[in-house]
Amino acid sequence: MVRIEQDILGKNDGIAAANRRWLAERAIFALNLVSSPGSGKTTLLVKTIEALSGQIPVSVVEGDQQTSHDADRIRATGAPAIQVNTGKGCHLDAHMVGQALERLAPEPGSLLMIENVGNLVCPAAFDLGEAHKVVILSVTEGEDKPLKYPDMFHAADLMLLSKVDLLPHLNFDVDLCIEYARRVKPGLPVIQVSTVSGDGMADWLDWLAAGLAGAASPSTTRG
Amino acid sequence: MVRIEQDILGKNDGIAAANRRWLAERAIFALNLVSSPGSGKTTLLVKTIEALSGQIPVSVVEGDQQTSHDADRIRATGAPAIQVNTGKGCHLDAHMVGQALERLAPEPGSLLMIENVGNLVCPAAFDLGEAHKVVILSVTEGEDKPLKYPDMFHAADLMLLSKVDLLPHLNFDVDLCIEYARRVKPGLPVIQVSTVSGDGMADWLDWLAAGLAGAASPSTTRG
Repeated sequence: MVRIEQDILGKNDGIAAANRRWLAERAIFALNLVSSPGSGKTTLLVKTIEALSGQIPVSVVEGDQQTSHDADRIRATGAPAIQVNTGKGCHLDAHMVGQALERLAPEPGSLLMIENVGNLVCPAAFDLGEAHKVVILSVTEGEDKPLKYPDMFHAADLMLLSKVDLLPHLNFDVDLCIEYARRVKPGLPVIQVSTVSGDGMADWLDWLAAGLAGAASPSTTRG
Repeated sequence: MVRIEQDILGKNDGIAAANRRWLAERAIFALNLVSSPGSGKTTLLVKTIEALSGQIPVSVVEGDQQTSHDADRIRATGAPAIQVNTGKGCHLDAHMVGQALERLAPEPGSLLMIENVGNLVCPAAFDLGEAHKVVILSVTEGEDKPLKYPDMFHAADLMLLSKVDLLPHLNFDVDLCIEYARRVKPGLPVIQVSTVSGDGMADWLDWLAAGLAGAASPSTTRG
């Protein structure tokens, strides 16, 4: 089984590298959004697309076991979206994303958001060709998740701590949670966000703008 | 890959059947608790053990990728608990539970709670030998999760809708969520619970008592 797993991951990594080259050639900044089910990824995407409207084109790949609810929600904003249903599968893979890219045909210089299946385990191992994995953790989930699902937090380059508007109603220690996340991934940047109050959205949009600028500048293109 | 998957599941089912016989011989009522990360499974277990204290012995198998936090929390109640770390794995399997049962040696006539890895995909396919899967869905996760992760809700015999104390602060439609769950699994019983307010705990304890009575009566033992 270990050998089969290595073969699957090796093949995936080859396709992911091709996706990454394809994206780099077009200066497209691609993010792989990973989290538990219900962390608020789709709502965050909708608010992000609305905020960038008229400035930066955004296209979206939506991963779910079943339904096209999320792609429908994205399309309602006017942004193009492709829904990938994974069936029994617990994550997107590079081949699925490569095929979706052909159909989406995102504009050069645009932002590509890949919303993975809600799962804190499986998506960690699968490179899709993204510039960064962004892990979203809702404050309703408890502080200890980075320690209990370390692979995912280690794989991420940014943590969005979501639904912070609910903090007054919860027993959740923000500092402890960030300490746990940085124990797994030293120096991990963290942005606290709420799509309800708008807290942190400006910081998130600044982070995206910096990434888009980097994707447009070949000298900082990731290998 | 399909053949390998069938072999793995076939082998798992054989061990699960052996676990089920072992539990039935001892009139132990075993539940497999499944949910997203952070739905409140461990807190619910702690409150349940406290409520049953002096009446029904409870033992716990805790599944997590990493850490022994949850088993530590259970042991602080005085109940015996075994932590199983799945490493890269996204679910418990019947072999892990069989080994844990040997070490736990739960009392005849007792309640065995198996807290699976927080994951709405992988644990659905793996029978552990339990009487029932119980799916816990937090109201912070959104109404649509039964449709997006149908295998898990189809596999469950009870849905606990958790953290209902937070409903006043959320935009969550309880009736719609239950309708979605029953679209996937017609007639699925639902109990709305909060470990903060205590809402629904009496119904949950009644459901457990009925299951324990059934486990003690051979005529209702599941095949």
